[in-house]
Amino acid sequence: MSLKLTILGCHSATPRVNAHPTSQLLEIKNHYFLIDCGEGTQVQLRKYKVKFAAIKRIFISHLHGDHIFGLIGLISTFRILNRESELHIYGPKGIKEIITIQLKLSNSWTHYPLLFHELTSSESELLYEDDNVEVYTIPLDHRIYTNGFLFREKKGERKLNMNAILNCEEIERCDYQNLKNGKDFILKNGKVIKNEDLTSNPPNPLSYAFCSDTCFYPKIVPQIKNVSCLYHETTFLNDKEALAATTKHSTAQQAATIALQANVKQLIIGHYSGRYKNIEAFKTEALEVFENIHLALEGTVFEIS
Amino acid sequence: MSLKLTILGCHSATPRVNAHPTSQLLEIKNHYFLIDCGEGTQVQLRKYKVKFAAIKRIFISHLHGDHIFGLIGLISTFRILNRESELHIYGPKGIKEIITIQLKLSNSWTHYPLLFHELTSSESELLYEDDNVEVYTIPLDHRIYTNGFLFREKKGERKLNMNAILNCEEIERCDYQNLKNGKDFILKNGKVIKNEDLTSNPPNPLSYAFCSDTCFYPKIVPQIKNVSCLYHETTFLNDKEALAATTKHSTAQQAATIALQANVKQLIIGHYSGRYKNIEAFKTEALEVFENIHLALEGTVFEIS
Repeated sequence: MSLKLTILGCHSATPRVNAHPTSQLLEIKNHYFLIDCGEGTQVQLRKYKVKFAAIKRIFISHLHGDHIFGLIGLISTFRILNRESELHIYGPKGIKEIITIQLKLSNSWTHYPLLFHELTSSESELLYEDDNVEVYTIPLDHRIYTNGFLFREKKGERKLNMNAILNCEEIERCDYQNLKNGKDFILKNGKVIKNEDLTSNPPNPLSYAFCSDTCFYPKIVPQIKNVSCLYHETTFLNDKEALAATTKHSTAQQAATIALQANVKQLIIGHYSGRYKNIEAFKTEALEVFENIHLALEGTVFEIS
Repeated sequence: MSLKLTILGCHSATPRVNAHPTSQLLEIKNHYFLIDCGEGTQVQLRKYKVKFAAIKRIFISHLHGDHIFGLIGLISTFRILNRESELHIYGPKGIKEIITIQLKLSNSWTHYPLLFHELTSSESELLYEDDNVEVYTIPLDHRIYTNGFLFREKKGERKLNMNAILNCEEIERCDYQNLKNGKDFILKNGKVIKNEDLTSNPPNPLSYAFCSDTCFYPKIVPQIKNVSCLYHETTFLNDKEALAATTKHSTAQQAATIALQANVKQLIIGHYSGRYKNIEAFKTEALEVFENIHLALEGTVFEIS
C-alpha cells in the first residue's frame, strides 16, 4: 500500500513561467483526488500525463485565485473531452456560483453531472467515505474561509498466515473472510484458535494532511496527529514572520513546528512567496525544527508507504 | 509609423503544453491593447516581456473560455502588483458579473479602478477614441454573442517640407501647426502659398481588424475593407467545412476569401483546432485564395507598416 502525491504547482500568488500556483494530485486506494486548482493546472495535468477521466473528486481549500482560477478551465475541458461521469467539487460556499455563472454566460453547460458540495462549517466534517478511504476537512485560519483536507486509508483486512492455516485441516476457503475480519476459529471439538495465530496485522493505514493556506495554527495538531505525511504551506521564511502573521500565512519554521507537535512521519512544504529566489532556504530553515522535510517542487512525485 | 502585434496564444478550445488559447497584444500609437485573454495569458505576457502596467484596455470578443478564462487571473495579478491606474475591460454583457463575483467571494477587490464597458449591440460601435486612434466593434456570427475589433490610426498631421518653408522668410515657427493642419499660408502682400507647396501628405493611417470567433460571414467585408492587417480565425481546414458551419467557425479557405473580398493588405490566421498537427496546412489552403498570408504562432511579432 502506498499513497502517491504529484506536485502540479507549488507557488503562491501569481503564476509565472515555470512557477505554477497550488495544485496536487493524490492517488490513494485507486482514487485520484485533485487538491486545489490554480491557473494552468489542466496544462500541468497534461504535462505530467495524468488521465483526466481518472479525476472524479476535486477539493478546493479556499477561493483565492492561486487555488481556484484553473477550475473553470478544467471543468470546461472535461466537457470538450466528452466526459460523461460525475465530477464532484468540494469547496467553500460560493464555488458553485463562480462556476455556474461562467457556464451559463458562455452557454457551455456540462453534459456530465457536475456536483457541488459547498462547505461552511468551522468544525471538521467528513466529506467523503467508501470502504477504503475517508476524507475530512481540516478547518484552517486564513484571511478567508479555508479548509485543509485529511485523507485517511481505512484499516485493511488482516493478512492470512497461510502456513498456519494450511496446518489446520478444518479451515476451509469459505472461512477466510472471517479470519481476515479478525474472528477466532472454533474447531469442531470446541477448541478456539486465536485469530492472531492464523493472521497477521494489516499494514498501518496511511494518511495525508493538506494544510494550505493558513497562519501558524496549532489547533490543527490533534487532528493531524501521527499522519504519514503532512503538506503545510510555507509562504515565508522567518525574516517575514510579522508579514506572515498579518497575511495569515506561515513561515518554514512554523510549518516544521506543527509537524513536530503533530509527530507526523514527514513534512512537505510549499506555497513559496515569489520574493524568495532560493527555495532551498525553506528546507534549511524547517530542518532546524523537524528532521524529515521535503520541498514541494513541480513534477515531484512522493510515494508515501 | 507601425503597428506591432504580438501573438500570445493562437489555439482554440483547451490550453495544452506549449499551445495557448487566443490572446494578442496590439501596440498602436503608444497604446498597448490586449485582445482576448485565454487561460495562461498572464504567463505569456511575462514570457514575452510585456510590461503589465502598459496595458490599460482589454478587449474580449466573447465569453467562451478560450478567450476569457485568463482574465480574472490577470486582473488579480494587477492587484498583487499594486497597480493604481485604471483598467478598462470591453466585452459582452455578463463579463462584469463573472469578474466581480470572483473578486467578491475571494474578498480580493482591486485597489485600482476597474471599469467595465459591457456590449450588447449587434451593430458596430465606437468603443474608444483619442487624438490618435479609434476602436470599433465588428459584430461577428458565432454560437454566442461575439465581436471582433477594428483598430484604426487617425490620419496624422501633414509633414512640413522644411526646404520650401525655409525659403519663405515670412513663415515663422508659430505658423508650423497651422501648416501641419493643412492651412494655406497668406503672405503680407496677400498672395497665397498653397499648403501642398509647403507640406506633404502624412503617412497612410494603419488599421488592424481582429475577427474571432466567427463563421464565414461576408457581412463584415465593408467594415474591414482595405485594412492594413486582418486576423481571421481558421479553426478548421476545408475537410471540416460542414463542422465549421455547425460550430460557427471558419475554414482557412473561408478566411482567405474574406481577406480577398475586403482587399486587405495581409491576413494573419489562427485559432487552430487541436485535431490538426500540421499548422502549415492552414497556410497552404489559404494561399490558394489569397497571397499575403501569415500564420499566428506563439511569440511571433508582426510589425505592420
